[in-house]
Amino acid sequence: MSAQPLSDFSRLCVHTITTKPWSIEEATARYAAAGVPAVTVWRQWLERRNIAQVGRALRAAGIEVVSLCRGGFFPATDAVGRRAAIDDNLKAIDEAVELGAPLIVLVCGAVPGQPLEVSRAQIAEGIAAMVDRARQANVKLAVEPLHPMYADSRSAINTLRQANELCDRFDSPHVGVVVDVYHVWWDPDLQQQVERAGRAGRIFAFHVCDWRTPTEDLLNDRGLMGEGCIPLRQIRGWVQQSGFSGFIEVEVFSHRYWAMDQGEFLGKIKNAYLKHT
Amino acid sequence: MSAQPLSDFSRLCVHTITTKPWSIEEATARYAAAGVPAVTVWRQWLERRNIAQVGRALRAAGIEVVSLCRGGFFPATDAVGRRAAIDDNLKAIDEAVELGAPLIVLVCGAVPGQPLEVSRAQIAEGIAAMVDRARQANVKLAVEPLHPMYADSRSAINTLRQANELCDRFDSPHVGVVVDVYHVWWDPDLQQQVERAGRAGRIFAFHVCDWRTPTEDLLNDRGLMGEGCIPLRQIRGWVQQSGFSGFIEVEVFSHRYWAMDQGEFLGKIKNAYLKHT
Repeated sequence: MSAQPLSDFSRLCVHTITTKPWSIEEATARYAAAGVPAVTVWRQWLERRNIAQVGRALRAAGIEVVSLCRGGFFPATDAVGRRAAIDDNLKAIDEAVELGAPLIVLVCGAVPGQPLEVSRAQIAEGIAAMVDRARQANVKLAVEPLHPMYADSRSAINTLRQANELCDRFDSPHVGVVVDVYHVWWDPDLQQQVERAGRAGRIFAFHVCDWRTPTEDLLNDRGLMGEGCIPLRQIRGWVQQSGFSGFIEVEVFSHRYWAMDQGEFLGKIKNAYLKHT
Repeated sequence: MSAQPLSDFSRLCVHTITTKPWSIEEATARYAAAGVPAVTVWRQWLERRNIAQVGRALRAAGIEVVSLCRGGFFPATDAVGRRAAIDDNLKAIDEAVELGAPLIVLVCGAVPGQPLEVSRAQIAEGIAAMVDRARQANVKLAVEPLHPMYADSRSAINTLRQANELCDRFDSPHVGVVVDVYHVWWDPDLQQQVERAGRAGRIFAFHVCDWRTPTEDLLNDRGLMGEGCIPLRQIRGWVQQSGFSGFIEVEVFSHRYWAMDQGEFLGKIKNAYLKHT
């Protein structure tokens, strides 16, 4: 059953990368002025910043921090690289604590030419090396399966089923999944795997955008909701019926939208959120 | 277990679209001169031609026709469109007979915004409308699962598992699958589904190329074997251990290769075939 239309912005969250031209300070002011109640902060937005102060400024502006994006990228061809990746992920936990983010999104990683099964084992090892620290810090880790077109270099975890299987290995309340419609909409097993994730209480985040036809760039040609072919209401219905009631996060990478006035773009985001999500 | 390296060109097949600048007459002469023993002919190469004569010319040049590419594209939003698609596919069977091609590759189709499950039902109906004629003509039909990045507009069948399930519905010696490494290499179920297809005697074709990092175009940036991350020997091993001993078909869509001298490119294909496939 499809979800009912959204009638207000109480569950709207925007990713800082969606409005890429805005710094964290500008995003904070603009989101607040536009009545956007929540944000997912990408780590690049925290470079050369006092992270705790960014978190305070967001909360003072009435904006909730949904997650820190992104950890992961565990696979590497040598032990030094894998250790560096784990260290960087432990640092991300510290950053999440400073920022006041309860969740870290994991884009798990892949190395071109390294067998996917090797990368998958390294991903499991990487998460294993984070779980204790995450629990102590009370920061959750959300595995985001990425579209198979990113299996070469961004993630060897490409379906929600794989993400569920990975989480089963940890059986931890601190390890769950992200359902991002862009990555999983095509999957014939999607409904079943969303329900499985829901039963396990591990749907930690829900990301939306749309798939344009034609898609002209593998990375940065995502559409706003309603501009493409993703059955957004249907997938949101499955996610909600599986018990998820958290924020609906707008994550759009788009050269064409980054090139326009970002205030006008934010208006389009709000419109598309109510009308099509 | 990975396959042994190939030591000669006896199983090499080239798709006419791989050397797109060449007409069928030029391809016939050039492939023969280069010792390419087999071809898959794309239908566009037969426009304004006497198809039977093309087939005779290929055989006279010592070139075997492996398949006609491509039928399919069954889904449409109205009955007229779906009927037209079926008529075109029945015409493809006639063309295959004229050409002397024992097999038609089916790229099943999808309509942006039409639910994938609706498209999948229309695909099953379309194939059902072809099976009798295909059997009478002794032409096989091979369902090619396409990469999930084509789920919007090219195929609602995106995994080998889906293709196997579709074939199970027909349980016909004339309905099988294509394993194209570009589309399926990322799939964690690949080995299992190749074995399943092999047990059912339905691996009708095997297509190779490679996945480049970065891939700059969703359609026309395929790599030659060895230029990317696809475990070609491993997948060929699974396919062969599952009983397939047919041609290994080089299907490369590439703006960069189409722009170069095609004779030189054919040399590169032969080199990549022996060295990396």
